[in-house]
Amino acid sequence: MPDTTMPDSTLSGTGLPAQSATALDVTGWTCPAPLRDRPRVVMGHGGGGALSAELVQHLFAPAYGGEALAQLGDSAALSLGGARLAFSTDSYVVRPLFFPGGSIGDLAVNGTVNDLAMSGARAAYLSCGFILEEGVEMSVVAGVARALGDAARAAGVEVATGDTKVVEAGHGDGIYVNTAGIGLIPDGVDLRPQRVVPGDVVIVSGEIGLHGVAIMSVREGLEFAVDVESDCAPLGGLVDAMLAVTPDLHVLRDPTRGGMAAALNEIAAASGTGVVIREGAVPVPDAVANACAILGLDPLYVANEGKLVAFVPREHADAVLEAMRAHPMGRRAAVIGEAVESHPGLVVARTGLGGTRVVDLPIGEQLPRIC
Amino acid sequence: MPDTTMPDSTLSGTGLPAQSATALDVTGWTCPAPLRDRPRVVMGHGGGGALSAELVQHLFAPAYGGEALAQLGDSAALSLGGARLAFSTDSYVVRPLFFPGGSIGDLAVNGTVNDLAMSGARAAYLSCGFILEEGVEMSVVAGVARALGDAARAAGVEVATGDTKVVEAGHGDGIYVNTAGIGLIPDGVDLRPQRVVPGDVVIVSGEIGLHGVAIMSVREGLEFAVDVESDCAPLGGLVDAMLAVTPDLHVLRDPTRGGMAAALNEIAAASGTGVVIREGAVPVPDAVANACAILGLDPLYVANEGKLVAFVPREHADAVLEAMRAHPMGRRAAVIGEAVESHPGLVVARTGLGGTRVVDLPIGEQLPRIC
Repeated sequence: MPDTTMPDSTLSGTGLPAQSATALDVTGWTCPAPLRDRPRVVMGHGGGGALSAELVQHLFAPAYGGEALAQLGDSAALSLGGARLAFSTDSYVVRPLFFPGGSIGDLAVNGTVNDLAMSGARAAYLSCGFILEEGVEMSVVAGVARALGDAARAAGVEVATGDTKVVEAGHGDGIYVNTAGIGLIPDGVDLRPQRVVPGDVVIVSGEIGLHGVAIMSVREGLEFAVDVESDCAPLGGLVDAMLAVTPDLHVLRDPTRGGMAAALNEIAAASGTGVVIREGAVPVPDAVANACAILGLDPLYVANEGKLVAFVPREHADAVLEAMRAHPMGRRAAVIGEAVESHPGLVVARTGLGGTRVVDLPIGEQLPRIC
Repeated sequence: MPDTTMPDSTLSGTGLPAQSATALDVTGWTCPAPLRDRPRVVMGHGGGGALSAELVQHLFAPAYGGEALAQLGDSAALSLGGARLAFSTDSYVVRPLFFPGGSIGDLAVNGTVNDLAMSGARAAYLSCGFILEEGVEMSVVAGVARALGDAARAAGVEVATGDTKVVEAGHGDGIYVNTAGIGLIPDGVDLRPQRVVPGDVVIVSGEIGLHGVAIMSVREGLEFAVDVESDCAPLGGLVDAMLAVTPDLHVLRDPTRGGMAAALNEIAAASGTGVVIREGAVPVPDAVANACAILGLDPLYVANEGKLVAFVPREHADAVLEAMRAHPMGRRAAVIGEAVESHPGLVVARTGLGGTRVVDLPIGEQLPRIC
């Protein structure tokens, strides 16, 4: 009879019985070199930057198998029953739950809907899982659920299935939400960084940095008065308008965690082309610029939740820009740079003074739990 | 300029700025009568019983809109691109992370795969979202990810997309996992409780109570020595074998949280038929019976993670039972009762002494965080 009377001593508060450590050793996992500096999870592993990428590349992808490796981007393009589907998930742990311009409920819809839109897919159905902390007020749960339902209706997506779990007080933070979404990818649309070629024009759909600055302005210990609301919004309609000009867009990304810097670096790395942007061309609202100056932040690294960056073949760039500006979600769209043959894999910014600087992939997110 | 300098005082540790309470009041949510007794979330709201059902019926379904109301079962049956899809999600918060017979990684695959199988769908793709607690050992994350990948390969499902968030130490419990899954529903298959009619035969696929007792045996403060492992396993193959006999099965359910009692009550309530089971016919292993006797529990209320209960038209019952017993996941399958015209919506057990007792829908789960 196996000894299943495990002691209740735990490893680092994980609820993991101590003797399971031995069981884990037996599985023969050897910590890959890039992860060895950090034997424990740090906040940056959830920041959407270099640490997140390491975790996916060296831990999750090998565990899940080869196919998944290429797919663990914003969303996966799948074939099922003869249809081309986009499938994506995100968990939302933003603090506070309600912030200027939105809530965790709005984020849980728009974040996932936008990941699908970056595949060219219009979101059709969402799943929605709540992890509630014991003791949270029912009116708060109801406020989040209503915001989520309203955002789903605004985005034209149906909440089709759900789940609720409860954890003891002290093991959560009020409400965590996960959504997964599915949608159809239109025929002829094939959006991925590997399609980027030198000469592609880089277009951003509007002013950057609003979501991150809005969250920072109400974060405990950091509050400041600023006239900024999150840009949290669904981008499916804007993407439809762009694809109506030409299905031949090369890649779209919504610059969330890690901001424009992370989005552009991911595209540069996956495409093997260089990217040059003109700092002066990037639309940064004064309030964001001022907040960043005070906090010592770079707007290129601040999160957005209702913007996209597009790499567009040069011959279509003018028409796509015009279509974006004609859409409510793209009125401030602007050309900010281009893909280049030089410095493959690297993102470079031309500064106002005529110099250049490298825009690195951030290590983590400047502010934890931004989404 | 709006005042966005919210104070950092919080409501009940939710991270919600106090003044947002006012904003919530403004939304005009009136707590529905059935929820008024509990103005705050309690553990039972995540238990899969009456409290969970109240939350879905009176809070989530009204927030999400009419369509979702009927769909918030184990999985939703959808139409997309001409295909019939099953779509389902679950979050997993089980403690401890590793237990006799499995881990949170195995559960995260099999729980969602089995929800899809209850629609007759073979799971094709999974999404996977991790919420990690700062400080958890990377080897533990790797152990869970490997278990998850192995379970996915065993179930024949591909992990297609993922996400990782990190929360501060003290705001999680090592690892929470969410998976969502999609699969195709075969033509001619229409599994739902509304199809149950009096005379249907109730078949269970094997011995019940193993998952719940295995978890209890290693739960802090409750450890006891018992030769029981979780039955956590994928049921897609067994369901395929049953559907090969006839696509005309009426309903399938996997009795997880809340056990057989919750599954049978949900079916009775949704179908409007009565259900009678013979206690002596329900396969309960001695070790489960003994543990339940000591703990004062009823095996009908204990969670399973690799069993199903089927309502089968009487003319197909013998052939379906035979096919189940020929499959590795159904060797101990047994007829345990039938659907009846009397006592509509009620589940009744015939006891060994010739008496009868009502098997109520549980309020919550006997043991929190069983999955």
